[in-house]
Amino acid sequence: MFDFQIIANEKNARAGLIKTSSGEIKTPVFMPCGTKATVKSLDPDDLKSLNVQVLLGNTYHLHLRPGEKLIKKMGGLHKWMNWNKPILTDSGGFQVFSLGQGQDRALVLKAPKITKEGVEFYSHIDGSSHFLTPEKAIEIQSDLGSDIMMAFDECAPGDSSKSYAKSAMKRTHDWAKRCLTEHARLAKNNSEIGALFPIIQGVTFDDLRIESTKFISDLNTAGIAIGGLSVGEDKNTMYHVLDLIQPYLPQDKPHYLMGVGTPEDLLEGVERGIDMFDCVLPTRFARHGTCWTEYGRINVRNEKFKNLNSPIDDNCSCYACKNFSLSYIRHLFIEKEILGIRLMTLHNLHFLINLMENIRENIINCKFEKFKKSFLAKYLIIKSAD
Amino acid sequence: MFDFQIIANEKNARAGLIKTSSGEIKTPVFMPCGTKATVKSLDPDDLKSLNVQVLLGNTYHLHLRPGEKLIKKMGGLHKWMNWNKPILTDSGGFQVFSLGQGQDRALVLKAPKITKEGVEFYSHIDGSSHFLTPEKAIEIQSDLGSDIMMAFDECAPGDSSKSYAKSAMKRTHDWAKRCLTEHARLAKNNSEIGALFPIIQGVTFDDLRIESTKFISDLNTAGIAIGGLSVGEDKNTMYHVLDLIQPYLPQDKPHYLMGVGTPEDLLEGVERGIDMFDCVLPTRFARHGTCWTEYGRINVRNEKFKNLNSPIDDNCSCYACKNFSLSYIRHLFIEKEILGIRLMTLHNLHFLINLMENIRENIINCKFEKFKKSFLAKYLIIKSAD
Repeated sequence: MFDFQIIANEKNARAGLIKTSSGEIKTPVFMPCGTKATVKSLDPDDLKSLNVQVLLGNTYHLHLRPGEKLIKKMGGLHKWMNWNKPILTDSGGFQVFSLGQGQDRALVLKAPKITKEGVEFYSHIDGSSHFLTPEKAIEIQSDLGSDIMMAFDECAPGDSSKSYAKSAMKRTHDWAKRCLTEHARLAKNNSEIGALFPIIQGVTFDDLRIESTKFISDLNTAGIAIGGLSVGEDKNTMYHVLDLIQPYLPQDKPHYLMGVGTPEDLLEGVERGIDMFDCVLPTRFARHGTCWTEYGRINVRNEKFKNLNSPIDDNCSCYACKNFSLSYIRHLFIEKEILGIRLMTLHNLHFLINLMENIRENIINCKFEKFKKSFLAKYLIIKSAD
Repeated sequence: MFDFQIIANEKNARAGLIKTSSGEIKTPVFMPCGTKATVKSLDPDDLKSLNVQVLLGNTYHLHLRPGEKLIKKMGGLHKWMNWNKPILTDSGGFQVFSLGQGQDRALVLKAPKITKEGVEFYSHIDGSSHFLTPEKAIEIQSDLGSDIMMAFDECAPGDSSKSYAKSAMKRTHDWAKRCLTEHARLAKNNSEIGALFPIIQGVTFDDLRIESTKFISDLNTAGIAIGGLSVGEDKNTMYHVLDLIQPYLPQDKPHYLMGVGTPEDLLEGVERGIDMFDCVLPTRFARHGTCWTEYGRINVRNEKFKNLNSPIDDNCSCYACKNFSLSYIRHLFIEKEILGIRLMTLHNLHFLINLMENIRENIINCKFEKFKKSFLAKYLIIKSAD
């Protein structure tokens, strides 16, 4: 079951409602990453208290460990991780190419081998060889019990040549069609199967992005994803691509911008018609002591917070800000105490989710443009002082 | 403010009630360790949901970082860590001697220098030199805002010679008197100052333990602590010492056995008249994947739990057991996910706190002896099979 309705819009910005068999999602929405079947440092009750509506699971990670068959046997990903709201799963495409390169890892990996059929890649855990195809990616996501699945794609790096970008895009289109076929085949025996979103690619080449948007939009799918952005190109280039493809996106389907999640990118994305976002930044930043405030980004380990008996953000209503001082949270980080990571994760996710709730309300009241300006005017203070 | 009343007893086992200005404590009680102003991986709401009545703070750690003066400035330890129930602080004595030896650490430390006046020791963080005296230990604990303070003691190792054990005990007695004097001096200007417990020492020498028990019991204090046990000697030796000193303990004061906390030790301790316990085991075990069940101790990383779709303990009502399977919790540990540590910490603390609640109820109903037998009969199953 999948349905999408637009409730209100202000220029290209939209407030909508997605319905899945695991529940509703008010859009625009920020979706936290539960990569390995857990949003790092939080439990499901935390997520509910944060008003998380939908979270991500990762096909690549869960396929390698513990394996989708085990999760299926345990009753599916929702039951296993005790999360009864919607789950979106990626297809593994991004990780196959990014983690398969062995960057920043002790294990030096061979590059993945891409053929028409699929991708042979080497596990970042133990170097073992695995083969992922469009059909296999759909099967894994179906076994996990995903509510919103992604088509298997080839995410070409931001600095790719045009000829490589084009061949990766073509393969992504072929694979999207094969994903649809496999999805339709599985749907015959599973009326509860999740929706499938194919992915627009094309690196930052205008003509490729338009070609890909047209191709992907013409497929008969419940939603559309935009991949291969926020992978190293500068922000203005990303905004340019979003401006460029916006007129070609089907307006009656949700638009999901993959892997994007700074506060300013959420605002710029929504303005360009994006309805769904995910990003590891709020949880990753939290583990490094970095958090967002209405005045910009700070790192709580900074010496200047040692004696500060006020919360991270006086106007924030998250659990960390309601209960603890910067002095205490800084101490937890200096002492490498787990509670520090947990409090910062709660704060960062609250910040983005609260921002999205405000954005939605302002779209409904036709005040989004004003809200965006006033938010950014404040938010960029610390940033520009950095 | 400090008051202790015995509500019921069964032979030497007692059910009691402590009153402090931060709230009441039903005894016998297990007190989790919040060494560096946080019970590792948990937040104060977790502790309340676990029915934690009182927790520990560490003078040694908090003195070195961030310093008791900073905590005092922030409103005291309770406010700083957002815990409004009782806090017991140790005196730093144990850590000065155990952490001061540089065991298991990259930093090779000089041994602490003990004089009549106090102890010069070297920080395990950076090797810097510090001097701790009985007076200073009380001042630090007073600055922290402790409800129950410990006298500064010399905790001699379990394998000490008798002559060293005796001189350490004598110093501990002298220091206990100086702590009382300093406590009385500070109490003149602070009617809310916490109670002070002096500490019985004497290693495992019968005559020294009796001598120390008599000396410490004769001091005019609110409670009595028993130190230097569970530091390497075998369990039967510890039980023997407890049996030995029990007749000499003042029956109208609470008896605190320091650093003890396996399920079997809690039962054996209560049987020998102990009212208060603390131990790092439930939180430390949790970080290593070890937990207690009514059938003994298990490690959740064991391969045999990979496919197990049932909780750690079917009869346990903790958050981990009510919501997650062993299969999932094992996965969290294999993936080094923080939630795994958190769930195991919740389980282990629930296990000990629930055990103590059962012990108390059974003492009140004069069924403690029977309860102890039946608990241990089940609990020792896995242990003996290990």
